[in-house]
Order: sequence, then C-alpha cells, then structure tokens
Amino acid sequence: MTTMKLIVVLAAAVVAMPLALAHEVVSSPDGHIKVTAGLKGGKPFYSVARDGRAVINPSYLGFELDKGSLKDGFEVIASKRDTKCETWTQVWGEDKDVVNHYNELRLCLRQRRGAKLRLDVVLRVFDDGLGLRYEFPKQAGLGEFQILDELTQVAMPVDAQAWTIPTQGTTYYEALWTKAPLSQKPEVSTPVTIEVSDSLYMVLHDAALVDYASLNYTPRHLPGAAVTLVASLTPWKNGVKVYGHAPMATPWRTCIIARTPGELITSRLMLNLNEPCKIADTSWITCGKYVGIWWGMHMKDYTWSQGPKHGATTANTKRYIDFAAAHGMKGVLVEGWNYGWDGDWARDNKFDYTKPYPDYDFEGLQRYALSRGVSLIAHNETGGFAKTYEDQLEAAFSLYERMGIHAVKTGYVHPLMDEKEDQHSQYGIRHYLKVIEAAARHHIMVVNHEPAMPSGLCRTYPNLISGEGFRGQEWNAWSADGGNPPYHVTVLPFTRGLAGSMDFTPGIFNFANKAMPGTHPQTTLAKQLAEYVLLYTPWQMAADEIENYEGQPAFQFIEDVPTNFERTVVLNAKIGNYLTIARKDRDSDNWCVGSATDETARDLDLKLDFLDQGKSYTARIYTDGPGADYRTNPYPVTFTTQAVKRGDVIKVHLAPSGGAAIMIVPVKPVTNH
Amino acid sequence: MTTMKLIVVLAAAVVAMPLALAHEVVSSPDGHIKVTAGLKGGKPFYSVARDGRAVINPSYLGFELDKGSLKDGFEVIASKRDTKCETWTQVWGEDKDVVNHYNELRLCLRQRRGAKLRLDVVLRVFDDGLGLRYEFPKQAGLGEFQILDELTQVAMPVDAQAWTIPTQGTTYYEALWTKAPLSQKPEVSTPVTIEVSDSLYMVLHDAALVDYASLNYTPRHLPGAAVTLVASLTPWKNGVKVYGHAPMATPWRTCIIARTPGELITSRLMLNLNEPCKIADTSWITCGKYVGIWWGMHMKDYTWSQGPKHGATTANTKRYIDFAAAHGMKGVLVEGWNYGWDGDWARDNKFDYTKPYPDYDFEGLQRYALSRGVSLIAHNETGGFAKTYEDQLEAAFSLYERMGIHAVKTGYVHPLMDEKEDQHSQYGIRHYLKVIEAAARHHIMVVNHEPAMPSGLCRTYPNLISGEGFRGQEWNAWSADGGNPPYHVTVLPFTRGLAGSMDFTPGIFNFANKAMPGTHPQTTLAKQLAEYVLLYTPWQMAADEIENYEGQPAFQFIEDVPTNFERTVVLNAKIGNYLTIARKDRDSDNWCVGSATDETARDLDLKLDFLDQGKSYTARIYTDGPGADYRTNPYPVTFTTQAVKRGDVIKVHLAPSGGAAIMIVPVKPVTNH
Repeated sequence: MTTMKLIVVLAAAVVAMPLALAHEVVSSPDGHIKVTAGLKGGKPFYSVARDGRAVINPSYLGFELDKGSLKDGFEVIASKRDTKCETWTQVWGEDKDVVNHYNELRLCLRQRRGAKLRLDVVLRVFDDGLGLRYEFPKQAGLGEFQILDELTQVAMPVDAQAWTIPTQGTTYYEALWTKAPLSQKPEVSTPVTIEVSDSLYMVLHDAALVDYASLNYTPRHLPGAAVTLVASLTPWKNGVKVYGHAPMATPWRTCIIARTPGELITSRLMLNLNEPCKIADTSWITCGKYVGIWWGMHMKDYTWSQGPKHGATTANTKRYIDFAAAHGMKGVLVEGWNYGWDGDWARDNKFDYTKPYPDYDFEGLQRYALSRGVSLIAHNETGGFAKTYEDQLEAAFSLYERMGIHAVKTGYVHPLMDEKEDQHSQYGIRHYLKVIEAAARHHIMVVNHEPAMPSGLCRTYPNLISGEGFRGQEWNAWSADGGNPPYHVTVLPFTRGLAGSMDFTPGIFNFANKAMPGTHPQTTLAKQLAEYVLLYTPWQMAADEIENYEGQPAFQFIEDVPTNFERTVVLNAKIGNYLTIARKDRDSDNWCVGSATDETARDLDLKLDFLDQGKSYTARIYTDGPGADYRTNPYPVTFTTQAVKRGDVIKVHLAPSGGAAIMIVPVKPVTNH
Repeated sequence: MTTMKLIVVLAAAVVAMPLALAHEVVSSPDGHIKVTAGLKGGKPFYSVARDGRAVINPSYLGFELDKGSLKDGFEVIASKRDTKCETWTQVWGEDKDVVNHYNELRLCLRQRRGAKLRLDVVLRVFDDGLGLRYEFPKQAGLGEFQILDELTQVAMPVDAQAWTIPTQGTTYYEALWTKAPLSQKPEVSTPVTIEVSDSLYMVLHDAALVDYASLNYTPRHLPGAAVTLVASLTPWKNGVKVYGHAPMATPWRTCIIARTPGELITSRLMLNLNEPCKIADTSWITCGKYVGIWWGMHMKDYTWSQGPKHGATTANTKRYIDFAAAHGMKGVLVEGWNYGWDGDWARDNKFDYTKPYPDYDFEGLQRYALSRGVSLIAHNETGGFAKTYEDQLEAAFSLYERMGIHAVKTGYVHPLMDEKEDQHSQYGIRHYLKVIEAAARHHIMVVNHEPAMPSGLCRTYPNLISGEGFRGQEWNAWSADGGNPPYHVTVLPFTRGLAGSMDFTPGIFNFANKAMPGTHPQTTLAKQLAEYVLLYTPWQMAADEIENYEGQPAFQFIEDVPTNFERTVVLNAKIGNYLTIARKDRDSDNWCVGSATDETARDLDLKLDFLDQGKSYTARIYTDGPGADYRTNPYPVTFTTQAVKRGDVIKVHLAPSGGAAIMIVPVKPVTNH
C-alpha cells in the first residue's frame, strides 16, 4: 500500500483566498481552542490558543528536502475548510464508540520562486486538541525526494514541566519517564506529556505513522517562546530522514489539550487522526487474557534455548493450556518454541518461524488447546533480523492460520534492525507495517515487542492489538536499577499509554525474584491487580508462572476483569503520584476500577457517579491489606463486598506503592432456569 | 445383623478371683488413669481417678428389667483382663492412623438369689478415658427381656460447669449448647462436656449405639458426690427403654478425660470403642466437597415443591453441576427433586424415592454430572416416615447404584418417627442402622439429617460419612432467635463434634438474608472459611447459592481446603470462646488451619510447631479485614502470603465473631515436565 491511500478524502469547500491575508483561524467544535495558521514573511506557521490564552506560540513549519528548502518564500494559494462529525465503533478498546468531531483547515501553499514547490498544511481541531500534517501534492517539481529535516516547531509560552524519555537509540523506548522543565531536557521522543498548569495538560505525539520516521523533539531557545520544541526525525543511517514521493502525506503532528490529567486518558484524538479500519471482516479479532511460558525464563527456572531446563516443552505447555482452560483464559504464549534460540540468538539470525524444537509438539499442542477452548499465541522473536522474518512471513502466518492460531507476539531484541537501521526509523516503520498487513491477511493479531512507538494505527489495523515500547513487567525481573519505580504505573497511562495499548504483562504474585535475589516488583500485590485496569490492552497477560497463582484468591480479580470496554472514566489522577480509572465492560453491565499510588500511601474516595441510576450493584473490593508495603511485604490484600449504587463513595487505602482493584457487578435475581 | 456380632472377641485371660475381693483396679496404659470396679454391698460400682485424684466417685451400675432388678445382690464370679494395642487406619477422618490401646477388665457378676441372673461389666481404660459397657450373657433366666431403666451413674466429685443440651424430645438435637453447673441442668442428652478445672475436661457419651436407646443423664443429688448423673434412656412410647435378648451387649458408656480442651478433639476414644469396619471393600467411599440446591429454598428463591419457583429443575441443576465441575467439587445435592414435596410434605407420607418431578431429568442429569467428573447426591427426605422409606430402600438404592450415585442425604423432619416413636429411641436407632446397612450393600454413603446422636459408628460403617444432630447453618436462615450465636462454632467441636462428623454446611458468602431481612449468619466471612477446618466432615458443602460465589476470591480457600486428613492438631482452645485447629491433608503435605472466636475480637499467635523440620512452606492466610465485625460488616477478608517454616508464628487478628483460615503448602520447585 502507499501512503496516498491514507489521505482522507473530504468533501471540501475550496475558498478563494485573498493572498494578502496572512493567516486564518480554525476553532474546535466547542469554540474553546482556536488555531491560527498562515504565513509570517512567507514562512508557514501556526499557533494555538485556548479560551483566549496562548497554548502554543507562533511556531514555524517546513522542511529541508534534497530538492530544496520548504520553509519560506511561500504564498497561500488556497484554503479549504471542512467539518466532520461522526461516531465510529472500535473493534476493541477503552471506549466502544468514538466521536470524531473536528473542524479542518487546509492551507495550500506554494513557493513564489524556484521550482515553485507546493505544500499543504492541514489542521484538524478537535475539542481535545489538534492534529497538523503536511501533504506534498503531486507536482512537476517533486517526484521522489528526500526529507533531510522536518522543521516543525512547538513554541511553548512557558517552560513547563514535562514527562519524557530521551530520543531512542537502541533502548526500544524502554526508559524511565522523568519529569523536568522542557528546557532542561535533551532531545526527547514523543509522546511528550507537558504539565503547563493545574488546568492545562498537553501531549505532543504523532498519529498515523505508516511510512515515515518517528517524531522526536529537541528543546531550543528561540525568540518568541520560553522554549521551542523542534521536530527531529529518527534518521536512516545515511542521514536521510524520510524517503518520499509526491503525492504524500506526513503523519499527523498531534497535540492533546486537556484541563485534567484524566482528560488525556479519555482523549481519542490519536485514534481519530488515523484512518478508519482497513480490515473488512474483523470477526476474528478478539479480546481476552493469556498466560505464558515466559516469566519462568526471567526467573531462570527455564531457558529459551534447548536443554534440560527448556521451558517450551510439550508437557509444560500442556500444563499452561490446562490452566488457561480452567481459568477462562483464551491464550497461551510460549517463548523459545522454535529453532533459533540456541547460542547467541540475538546475533545469529537463524530463527525459523515454522520449525519447532523436537521437544515441542507445536501442532499437537494447538489441537489440544483448541479442544479446550484455548489457543497458542505464536511467539516470533527476530533478534532484529527483519528481512529474515519478512522472508518467512507468508510461510509462518499461513501455517499459523491453518492451525487456528490468531495471535503472534513479535520481538526485535537487537540494537539495530537488520544490523543497520534504527527500529523507529522509516526503515523500521515500513517493516512493522509489512508484518501487520501480512498478519491481517492471515487473520492474525499482533502484539509487537521492541516496536516503534505506536501512533494510533490500531484504528486502521485493529489486528495490531498491543505492543511494548516501554519498561514492562520484565524490568522487575532483571533490571540492575531495581526495576520499575513505584511511580512508574502512575505515569505510563499519561505517556506511552496515549500512543496505544500496552502489553505490560501485569500479575506477578510471587515477589521472590529468584533471578536477582533481593529485587522484586516495586508494587504491592493489590497494585498488580490494579494494573489490569490502569494499563490497557485488549489481551491482558497473567504474567507469573502458573504455579504462583495456585491457591491465590486475588487471582479471582484477574479472572473477572474484562479487557474490552464500553466506556472509560478517570476518577482521579495526578501524573506520577496516583490514578484511578473505571471502565465498563463491553459485554455486560460490570465495571472494573483500578487505583494506584506512587511510594506514598494514600486514602482515596472513589465516587461512583458512573453507575446507572436506580440500579443495585455489588462491589468486590481488593485493597492493600494491613501492613502491606512494597518495600517490606507486598502480599496482604483485603477483600470485601459492599452493596453500592450510583453516587456512593468507596473509600480505599493505598499502601506505599499500593493499589486497589474493584469489580462492580449488578445484583442479579436468582432464577431456576 | 445382631448385636452379638459387635462384641469384641478378645484373647482374654480368665483370672480366678477370690470372692471376698470387693473391687479391682484397671489402669490406663500410661498409668495415669485408674478405674476401680467391683461390688459395694452387692451393688456393682466403678470409680475413676487420675493421678490419684478422684475424677468420678464411686458410681453404681445396674438395670431394672421386666424380669427383675439387676442392681444389687451380686457376687463376682470371675474377672478377666486383657490388653490391646493396635493401630488401625480410618477410611477417612481427622487422623489417618488411630492407636487403639487399652487395658480391659471384665467383671462377671451373678446375683446370689432368685434367678441368679448374670451380668458382665466391661471396662476399657485408655490414656484418654474409659468405656464401660454391660453384657448380658446367654443364660437360662434371660431370653427376651425389657430394660425398664438403666441405672448407670456418674458421680461427680465437684459440681462442675458443663456444656449440654436438654434431653431431646422433638428437636432433633438442634438446641443451643449452654454452660452451667451440672446441678442446675435439667435432664441432658449426651455428649455432656464438663469443665472440671483448667486441667481436667471430661466428655460423657455413648459409643457403638446399634440396637439400644440413646443415653441421657439426669443430674441428681445423691450421697457421696457433689452431683450424680444418672442414666436416662430415651424410651419407647410404651415406657420400655430397650427390648433386649441375651446374649447382648449395651453400647459403651464413654468418658473422655483430657488435660486440655484440645485433647478432647484429638481423642479417638469414641471410634476405638466401636467395632472395626464391616465393609470389606471401601474403595467407593470417597471424600470431597459439594454444592447444592438448598440454601436457595431457605432464602425463598426456590421451593422444594413443584411450581414456578421449583428449585430442582433440570436447567438449574445443570448450572450447579457446571459450577461443581469448574471448581473441583465432586457432588451436587438437589433437594425437592422427587415426588412428595407438594402440600404438607412433613405430614403427608407420600415421598417417592425413585420418581423425579417432571421438570427434573434425574437420569440425564446424573449422566451429565458423571461426564463432568461430578455426581448427584440423592436427597431422601422422609418426613419421619421410616417404614415408608424402608419399604423403598432397595428400589431406591438399587436405582442410585445403577446410576452411579454413591451418596444420599436423608432427612426426618417430623416430631416422631412413623408418627409414634422418638427418633433417638431404640426404634429410631434400629431404623437408622437399617438404612446404613442397605446403603453399604449398594455402595452408598449416607449423610443423616435429623438423626440420632452419632456414637462413632462410622468406624464400623464408614459409609455413614456425616450427619446433623445440631444447629447447622440453616438456623442462620430462619431462626426466630437470630440464628446461631457467635460462640456456637467454638462449642460444637467439643460437644456434638466428638460424637461424629458434622454436616454443618458452612460457606455462606452473601449475608443478606432475603427470607428474614435483618438477620444473617452471626459470623464474619473469614469465620465461614474457618468452619471448613473446625467443623469436620469428609464431605464439606459450599452451602451458599452458587451465584454468591461468583467473583469471590475467598472461595479459593473452599476450593483448596482438604476434607480427609492425616493428622489433626489443636493449637489453642477455650470452649465457647476460641479455637484453632490445624489439619494435615492426607493426600499431600498441605496443612490447613482454622481459627474462630466468639463475639470477642482476639489476637492469636499460631505457632507452626507441626510442620516438617527443614521444609519450606508458603502460608496463604485469610483473616478478618479492617472493619470486619459480624454485627455490622462481615465481608472484609485480608489475604496474605507468607513464607513459613516449622516453629514460625503467624499472628492473626480475629474480629468479633471472626475467624482465620490458612492453607500452608510446601514450596514446590518449578519443573518443565
């Protein structure tokens, strides 16, 4: 497919435009946000205000191409406006129905001199922010071209505190999010989550990244702003940022604008700025929970490679299938099942995606799994050898499809893709899309580990169900820095989580780290439960070794918690400190609620304003028990049942790095039929 | 069968005895207990001392028969002694192996005048108490006879506090155990649990009650004792106590003697005084847990009888079978499945034990249950019409056996058996044995409700797996007195529980009593869990409606708790106040622990001295959560996991009428095979 297909064709009104007009204004449907865009001395710019106050100061736009500068000397040759208001339904997600309501302004620019290159700037303004993208129209002077630099700016009126990770070299976006004023930041990856004030939160990112480079920002001190973020695309190794060809649209440069941290989480701007679903029949795309032979490798109980401690054996996998079947889990992930793991697997490029190890009866196990209402999730570690994987994609996915396997977890553990390019460069982005499209053809869902940062592409390809691109649970197994700190979970939903669903793999119940004695997940057990609500993905893993769930009453919550939601409500939030989210199951009238805190114990009042009026519910509440503390004793969980109705308040006490998890279910009458 | 068969044939040494010797002494194997028995002025008597102190003062023995008095004018014609030391294995129970070690003295008595009737008094003295029984040897003057009164006395040196229930008329032993000095008691049923001092506890009861009347005691003020308990047998309606025929042995009159309340619970004296197992192949006798359509009737969600709310429907039962299968429960009890429930079922005598109601597919459901590894438990309510039941026993049990049903719960809800005799009279005792024997022939286990008080007969007939004969959970559903009080569970194991396993049916999780709003079980939820350990039966019910277990993490304990034990240890106990029991699973190295308190909150230190030395265990601890109180909020349960080893102390806090339940499991190495 080409990027051309992604350009939204709108029934647009072309407005004849006086060339003398330096800028135009486009407002959000509710009128609060106004975006000004136009030219300043021939240089394209935009600025953003909310309720009359500058949110983004005038910020320049443009490119350096191999075929010349596209940053100045422009005139506006036309502007077009459009409005869209639609409601679309997610195949899966945090909300069932998504309102896509925006006003669009397209500025058609042309350089006055030279090749008179044309460039469109498209702005979509929503009640919850904006997207801006460039389009390179088909034109004589611009066939194939190279983007040497994208010059997009975000000029911030104040040097606000921001949660960021550094631009990624080889760490797969697996860095800790830290908070500091923007001016003190190095070059940062997107998303960039900015706390401007108690009533203004902004998140910068890109949407619909399909054939382009990942967007980073460099903080600069430029005139007209306290700090200006300047786009910095992840380059190919030759220095080129993007290979383009007109016509072509860039990904959207997005900015969510919110009054509360919670509004960031309920914003669907990222999804709205992606193309509608391209998969005609999505009936094979499902939601669920899974277990896997994986944490056992981190705990050194098993090896990925062959040998006496090989984890991916037929007998062991059968145990996991049986466990999944007994506990209503639909998937079993098995890592280390296929040839390629022996030796230096991350360097040797010898993975075979169809050939199981001799002690692993791949087809027999899948038949057994299907007979028990479960399926294997195929694991495809590539060691970063993307070409090798691409060469086998058809064979592997055909096999999986024939076997009834509808999900694959991919991995790219290598500093570079194919030993040369960054994974989040255009090279990597192209590869990931190839996998997603091949998988879609074969009715396979993809959980992409060591991926590019997601950009809402799951709207277009809902088989891209989840991904990594953050420090997941595994960092609690082997991280020399002691694992993910207590505040980690209270930051992820406001940063990486806004880019796409997260395969965090929560649910560690045994805190004794056999691999690195003395370390353990820096949460309480109740907080592990809360993560199932707070860290969204349609396929949640119960990540611990199944032995560690035996006899664990708190596992009931993992059994009960839904993974596909009709509606999401944020009850309270302070980024980096605490967070409570309530989500309504899409298939029932059940709600689940998750609360988490950083290292500080807290008492929270959870007001149940979201429940249906007049309906009686039972709340099944899991909270940190007496003495629970992530440092000394993570285990105590108090469970209680409480009759609740709309408007009631549930008081929960969160221990240091503690949490609460609640299932709220309607009271059902007993029947004998 | 005849009672003759019950007489233990011992390799006995007949000792020629000087007639002048007024009494003999027989000691317990450890020498602490000494029982003196002989004649005082021709009247048979016995007395008991422990460590030189009188425990029972000289107490007379004898009978009034229709054929004359058997209370005086005796001479000792011989005495025989024997010793037995054996270890036998229970088919199921609180301990696997039982040591049966006693010294026996048999006094052969003959009246000097008249018909010169002979009577043997047999005493067995164990380290934990004694049994005394009479034998009527075959003799010319005594063929058929009537016992008009049994004159056995227990002369207490002090008027001690005792836990008793009044002699039963029509209340099926379902009275509250109360504590008062013996002298202030009315006629009481056995068991009688006496707290003589902080280091002397005694329990009086009868063992091996197979063709006799139940034993009660009347406190009397007689010379030579502070208070004397005089036997009072439950009569036939014509006043006769027992119809006998020589040779014949009476049941044992038992007295457990203990230094601590806990020693009462671990005494197996009652079992040792019953005959060994008469069932050759016991492989079909199993242990397990069950659910049932029963509490729903008490909650008025269902009716026993036909109609729109009929509980025993095919669809409803299938749900219960599915639930049982999903949660490792082996049985599903369904009440109201058979014809007879419509109208005034407790009076109409129309029960049909083979004919299901039209909306209940009895055979189809059992096939379905078996396919899921579950079985129906047949319910046979008789309304007290024993003869009607006896007439159908062969047909019913043959049908059940053919269907693969190996358990039946019987019921006798009627003030009288066959509208004329007391259930605990010889008439009733004979009926119950008939049912047990018929069931054994057909490989059916019996849970006997509204029974006679058990007497350890389950040793002889281990298909008699459990019974009622106390205020069970159902009293929490409809009792006008507010249900079982908080102290109830801390008394039962020291009273009724010493007579035999108890089908208490614990596990109510929904405390909202729809049938009697405002009332509810007077326990916390954690105490409901503790009851699974404290109130022993090899078939434990999860009594609540299955809807009320959905999503309940504490149900994990019910899933995990074993019901057949290798060993039982009492960690602490104060009768009527608190109690902690630890029991080791017979099929694994798992232990379970249950603690309960009365209305007073308590902190208990549970010392794990019973665990294997050098082994690592994980304790999964369920305790009352913050704010738990049986009066206001029974629901909060705190769950925590703790690594433990022998000698460690687990500290538990019990709420008012609260409890704690613990599973202790060995740490298992992870394997891939």
